[in-house]
Amino acid sequence: MEKLVSLCKRRGFIFQSSEIYGGINGFWDYGPLGVELKRNIRDAWWKAMVRDREDVVGLDASIIMHPRVWEASGHLTGFTDPMVDCKACKKRYRADQLCEELGITIETGSAEEHGFKLPPGTQCPACGSTDLTEPRDFNLMFKTFIGPVEDASSVAYLRPETAQAIFAQFNNVLSVSRQKVPFGIAQIGKAFRNEINPRNYTFRSREFEQMELEFFIKPGTDAEWHEYWVAERLRWYETIGLPSSSLHRDIHPKEKLAHYASACTDVAYEFPFGIQELEGIAARGNFDLSRHQEFSGKSMEYFDQETNEKYVPHVVEPSAGVDRIALALLCNAYAEEWVPTKDTGGEVLAADITASRPPEGYEMRTVMRFAPCIAPVKTAVFPLLKNKPELVAKAREVFEIAKACGPAFYDEGGAIGRRYRRQDEIGTPYGVTIDFDTLKDETVTLRDRDTMKQERVKIAELPALLK
Amino acid sequence: MEKLVSLCKRRGFIFQSSEIYGGINGFWDYGPLGVELKRNIRDAWWKAMVRDREDVVGLDASIIMHPRVWEASGHLTGFTDPMVDCKACKKRYRADQLCEELGITIETGSAEEHGFKLPPGTQCPACGSTDLTEPRDFNLMFKTFIGPVEDASSVAYLRPETAQAIFAQFNNVLSVSRQKVPFGIAQIGKAFRNEINPRNYTFRSREFEQMELEFFIKPGTDAEWHEYWVAERLRWYETIGLPSSSLHRDIHPKEKLAHYASACTDVAYEFPFGIQELEGIAARGNFDLSRHQEFSGKSMEYFDQETNEKYVPHVVEPSAGVDRIALALLCNAYAEEWVPTKDTGGEVLAADITASRPPEGYEMRTVMRFAPCIAPVKTAVFPLLKNKPELVAKAREVFEIAKACGPAFYDEGGAIGRRYRRQDEIGTPYGVTIDFDTLKDETVTLRDRDTMKQERVKIAELPALLK
Repeated sequence: MEKLVSLCKRRGFIFQSSEIYGGINGFWDYGPLGVELKRNIRDAWWKAMVRDREDVVGLDASIIMHPRVWEASGHLTGFTDPMVDCKACKKRYRADQLCEELGITIETGSAEEHGFKLPPGTQCPACGSTDLTEPRDFNLMFKTFIGPVEDASSVAYLRPETAQAIFAQFNNVLSVSRQKVPFGIAQIGKAFRNEINPRNYTFRSREFEQMELEFFIKPGTDAEWHEYWVAERLRWYETIGLPSSSLHRDIHPKEKLAHYASACTDVAYEFPFGIQELEGIAARGNFDLSRHQEFSGKSMEYFDQETNEKYVPHVVEPSAGVDRIALALLCNAYAEEWVPTKDTGGEVLAADITASRPPEGYEMRTVMRFAPCIAPVKTAVFPLLKNKPELVAKAREVFEIAKACGPAFYDEGGAIGRRYRRQDEIGTPYGVTIDFDTLKDETVTLRDRDTMKQERVKIAELPALLK
Repeated sequence: MEKLVSLCKRRGFIFQSSEIYGGINGFWDYGPLGVELKRNIRDAWWKAMVRDREDVVGLDASIIMHPRVWEASGHLTGFTDPMVDCKACKKRYRADQLCEELGITIETGSAEEHGFKLPPGTQCPACGSTDLTEPRDFNLMFKTFIGPVEDASSVAYLRPETAQAIFAQFNNVLSVSRQKVPFGIAQIGKAFRNEINPRNYTFRSREFEQMELEFFIKPGTDAEWHEYWVAERLRWYETIGLPSSSLHRDIHPKEKLAHYASACTDVAYEFPFGIQELEGIAARGNFDLSRHQEFSGKSMEYFDQETNEKYVPHVVEPSAGVDRIALALLCNAYAEEWVPTKDTGGEVLAADITASRPPEGYEMRTVMRFAPCIAPVKTAVFPLLKNKPELVAKAREVFEIAKACGPAFYDEGGAIGRRYRRQDEIGTPYGVTIDFDTLKDETVTLRDRDTMKQERVKIAELPALLK
């Protein structure tokens, strides 16, 4: 993990937010390669979930919504961690973590609901005082104020999930989209949670990006649609290069589900820090639409023209995290290998981590094995030598061809082997080298990142090969 | 404008945020068509500004940054509007807008710095009272708190612009991207301003999306690069279908520029509510990098290997608003015309607004004349009749072909003329109709949205024609 984090910074995938000011805990920036990686993830999701489907339409709602939305959704009262204040020094703690430090385990969740109490004599770790408040609920929503007055009437929240906007706009979308149940509304966007303890690199951040689908269905079809979406989503992860062997299906037991939910399955990935959720696929019944119906006084009923029934649709929700998927792709792509020192397509050896040095004639390379559809750069183009104008001119010509097939990078600096390694390290699947033979016969070498095999191909064939 | 606003809601371009709860002033949601329109704008910008250029790389930074960023940038003290309260009816105004309504021009900016006073006898437009407060500064940044303690030490802000993250990450990006001055860093993302009076539909919102480029240059080359970017950006607007005749170049006079700026040109569009800025292109000197150097203690100097000089680069900043561009495209596309009642390619008449009814044989149509690269739907596919399975099957086949060329919509409901009109109203450039001849000779009619001309083409030719 440390090596990956270092590569991510060194090669421009991920930076700490505001690093020059010492950073800010739980916030991350994506550099030149990271932004392209995230774009590819979003585009792949949008294509699979919206553009390629006739039964899903998109939405792009505001991050700040009317505060009643969060009353209806239950976030205002229920989206909490238990908090404790020291009355002496005014420090504040998360009750479960304070107890953990004292060797006592309590559950996270609502302090008021679970009736948490601190063990008698609990001391403030900062000042030693035992004058602590009882745990009470701390809401994880970031609060702000709209307009110039900072009071209760102007409070608003940064959305802790994108989903609620979809429910709030259900009627509007239904009336404009000519869709019939079953159909879905999809959204990609930022969400914010005021986590007490952001951790595991970008995995648990305070600002993150979600890709959520609310798929509205006829009551009673929940189980079949839930199954459909679990299968569909697992299939999608394979299309972006996460092998099914690295993914886990984590089925929530019935007794742990929220009262309105009938099923929930997490798609989890084997991160270096443990098996952790990338996406949750929940059958949420009609809880959300019903709550918004109750709180807004607007009917959320759907009239089924075929059966003449009226009902509040149920919903299946596949909810994925862009940053988590990006991190999984980075972890999955990262490999260290022993490869022939002379980079001409010799056999790749898996690195033997028990040996300290590669065998004679081999060296270590770091390679990011991104699927081509996800790789930030698809093709790198190299003139063999940069001081031969005719090679450079030809390479520029080939670069234009490569660029028309996807993001491409032109590099003329340094030994060709070094240039290959730089591209391996950022996961560029294809390398095209222009040499003196190119000038004679219009062929180039096309190098495969993973096998390092090089084949001679006609320039005219490149577009078909790169696509 | 009212008709456009109504169309935007009716057809799913733009909804009021949280409409079922009465809305929230200054926040907007983009519906199924709006989200595609915005995606097309972003993608066109990213392609032109990042992917097609070797001298620009991307960044995707967090919305919440370290608060020192806003001290360094000057936003914490200087990003204010002058605010006036009516003591009688409690309404609140922006002093400059209030004066504007009264026909008096005062400058925007700090009330305290400029010593604004309201002209004697200024009345509240709502209640007529003259009991108004003097203007005072109101900071436009939305404030929040990170972590559970709400005090000065935990205050953070939602970024009021994306640009500062680019300056804060200048060193990181420079070190990973192998770029040399001149080069640029580009970013697309949400920004937030707590406007006192959001207005003009989506034009002045509290939450909006920016597309900003910071192009770093050698000191002394500011004028030529500023000129370059003004020309480049004007050209770009034409590629997305905003004719140069609708755009204005608003050159800020030298004496109105900030002390560090050497030039600023706005690209403005003729909105129904006035000529208003879409984008500002400013030559900002090295103000931002120097300030971050001062506040962070980290050198922002660039070492020029060719000339052996060291300098803090200057910057030219083209800064555009996605929502404003979307609104300009919507305004620009909207047209009402008199067209032949029988939609078979007859001549289109411009609507004569002085006459109340179209001439004999004509009817009114509303059409959105989006450029094809910007249109949310590129092609609509229609079987002539929906109760002929062989027509429907063939139409589905053609739909798959159309979908491979871009977003496509399949519609089998209602009279064909009605279906054409529905697509005209959302700006779909091409309509493909499958009729009985199709079954015989593999031809379809291809209808052009603007001319309404229909031509018979081979199905095999469709991909080339639609691309």
